[in-house]
Amino acid sequence: MTASLKATLAEANLAQTLRGMGAAARNAARHLATLSAERKLTALKSIAAELRAGAGEILAANARDLAAARAQNRTPAFIDRLSLTQKSIEAIADGVEIVAALDDPVGSIEAEWIRPNGLNIARVRVPIGVIAVIYESRPNVTVDAAALCLKSGNAAILRCGSEALNSALALHRCVAAGLAKAGLQTDCVQIVATADRAAVGHILTGLDGDIDLIIPRGGKSLIARVQQEARVPVLAHLDGNCHVYVDKSADPDKAKRIVLNAKLRRLSVCGAAETLLVDRAAASLLKPLVLALLDAGCEIRGDAQTQGVDPRVKTASEDDWYTEYLDAIMAVRMVDGVGGAIAHIAKYGSAHTDAIVAEDKAALDRFLKEVDSAIVLANASTQFADGAEFGFGAEIGIATGRLHARGPVGARELTTTKYVVRGDGQVRP
Amino acid sequence: MTASLKATLAEANLAQTLRGMGAAARNAARHLATLSAERKLTALKSIAAELRAGAGEILAANARDLAAARAQNRTPAFIDRLSLTQKSIEAIADGVEIVAALDDPVGSIEAEWIRPNGLNIARVRVPIGVIAVIYESRPNVTVDAAALCLKSGNAAILRCGSEALNSALALHRCVAAGLAKAGLQTDCVQIVATADRAAVGHILTGLDGDIDLIIPRGGKSLIARVQQEARVPVLAHLDGNCHVYVDKSADPDKAKRIVLNAKLRRLSVCGAAETLLVDRAAASLLKPLVLALLDAGCEIRGDAQTQGVDPRVKTASEDDWYTEYLDAIMAVRMVDGVGGAIAHIAKYGSAHTDAIVAEDKAALDRFLKEVDSAIVLANASTQFADGAEFGFGAEIGIATGRLHARGPVGARELTTTKYVVRGDGQVRP
Repeated sequence: MTASLKATLAEANLAQTLRGMGAAARNAARHLATLSAERKLTALKSIAAELRAGAGEILAANARDLAAARAQNRTPAFIDRLSLTQKSIEAIADGVEIVAALDDPVGSIEAEWIRPNGLNIARVRVPIGVIAVIYESRPNVTVDAAALCLKSGNAAILRCGSEALNSALALHRCVAAGLAKAGLQTDCVQIVATADRAAVGHILTGLDGDIDLIIPRGGKSLIARVQQEARVPVLAHLDGNCHVYVDKSADPDKAKRIVLNAKLRRLSVCGAAETLLVDRAAASLLKPLVLALLDAGCEIRGDAQTQGVDPRVKTASEDDWYTEYLDAIMAVRMVDGVGGAIAHIAKYGSAHTDAIVAEDKAALDRFLKEVDSAIVLANASTQFADGAEFGFGAEIGIATGRLHARGPVGARELTTTKYVVRGDGQVRP
Repeated sequence: MTASLKATLAEANLAQTLRGMGAAARNAARHLATLSAERKLTALKSIAAELRAGAGEILAANARDLAAARAQNRTPAFIDRLSLTQKSIEAIADGVEIVAALDDPVGSIEAEWIRPNGLNIARVRVPIGVIAVIYESRPNVTVDAAALCLKSGNAAILRCGSEALNSALALHRCVAAGLAKAGLQTDCVQIVATADRAAVGHILTGLDGDIDLIIPRGGKSLIARVQQEARVPVLAHLDGNCHVYVDKSADPDKAKRIVLNAKLRRLSVCGAAETLLVDRAAASLLKPLVLALLDAGCEIRGDAQTQGVDPRVKTASEDDWYTEYLDAIMAVRMVDGVGGAIAHIAKYGSAHTDAIVAEDKAALDRFLKEVDSAIVLANASTQFADGAEFGFGAEIGIATGRLHARGPVGARELTTTKYVVRGDGQVRP
């Protein structure tokens, strides 16, 4: 057999395997859609227990992934995303239990009304069906995605990148064991067991109609590929160029606390602030903020006025206003009040998460209304852009598209609706 | 200048014109997003008045489209879709006033809660932005789309097929006049003034990010092209293979009334029923239904038992169960109770609209829960699948995808949400 024939056969096998996973997922979705809230809750608790019991195996699998990553001289940020610890496995299991305890979105009546002809119309939440989650080096996505899909009554097909595959498979074994012990079909959550990148291409075709939604989680190149090639709807979770605007009415202490936290609490999260905008009418607010950032080890790239504050401030280029540093660097400029901040964010922002610090109600209201981002905050850190912080237990990411869901995507956002109409023999005139 | 050079220049001009429309729409969308509910209401009333005042001009334009259609030997169904009358223009204006009087979806708070750290989180409805509506031979879509987009705070770019373009342009002149008299930017609703089919291709690219959503309305080939080529989200409005299932517990009179109405009230609407399923445990229900349909002039294609009812019944092939006739033809078969009906609909249906006729509560509840269609009805005609019948004033179609909106798409479905978070200096630990 030639190498190319072997490759062709392997490719055909992979395609067949994935189509089989799709069909199994569709069956599991029908099973899941009719399960009671209680049975799903029991299954989620069972999964959490299996994760705690399996921590040793998970850590051993994670150690293999970490060894490979170190051998490849991966960056510290990469190693950080990949690393699991006893504590982080506990946190993952806790997250599953939090999701378990949330209200079940399926079957909830969003609205109900009676028409003049007596028809009773209700808009009811139902599962989406089969959701494929394609991710890279964060093994915890395995469990977050499984828990949220299960809670929302969807079957899941998970595809983890090769870097974290040992960890993901170990986590998935716990998920499958939890499902089985609770009497649910293990096909409710399947994982692609190969690192073959061709698997992604097959998933993007939609597997003969057996995938209803694809959620990519990872770097920009993955998300761009999924958005470009997917033949089914995509809920994309992009990174964020987030802003903090400090209004002339701001409380200086709140402003300092919020700016430092928004920029520096964690550098690599999508809700980390990248640009600080300060009201030109309150120039005195600028210096203490810039000095606090510099003293905390943050590089500042500023406009002319910001450069006047301290010789350590570097010159911002036009590109800086567009840049998501995900690093200890912040772009800083003065703007003409709340209107100037809104205009800057409309031009340079990514419609992810933006905050205003102000005491003036009119400024707050205008910013919250006119900044067209998935999350707008008043007097709070942009680092709250997170499903757990919103009370969703876990999130599958932050959606920055405009359709279906915007902001943190939890179990509710993984459902859709149908109209249930009850009559008593009505016909249409 | 060669013909090919001329064509290239014309194409470049068209591309430039459409990009200009996209940029103007984006500006108009910003204007619209901040308008009060009252100003939009005033503008909608003003549009309704202009439509009534302009009826003569609209009918004259429609007569030109009708003359061209007749010259091309178009089908009666086509002529019917294209035709406007004094009465239908009244109905269109009434529809605008009904939309005007509805609650404004923008700014409505869908949910609001307070976190343990004191953050107040609200999910608030906001416009989507710029919506492109691509349609064919129904000129009334011009006004329905304009009214719903305006109500929901979105700018609209309309693209009508050449067959109805004179009518659509006349209707659009009334819309523009109404906007202008109410002091709104006329760019809030723009229409592509050329019949050049290349315009559709440009719109499908998204016009440099200036289109947020595309809604195609028309035949399957248009919708398939849009779904295939669009580089931005699509809300698709497909036709429906709708079912009526008559359970053994059905009231025979209700069943007859509903089946006749669902099939025959209007043949060409997407909510018209195409297949009748009768519970095998109540064979006596079959004959009167089949005879009533036959006597009303409906062709029946049935399974063996249905063929036994009357010699006029033809033989159904496997294809019939998949077919949306949009004609006086109905496929009829017996099924094994509600479970058999659910299985038949899952296999052959299009997840659009399906109805059960039954008095037994368990059968009703199971059908309504397990039939996974955008609209499920109990004891009512499938022809209620319509936004106006749901109380939405007008609809922009029936969405059969699973994301963002399912069922009749009214003003609410043309909005999205954002999270508004109010704090008092909170930072994330």
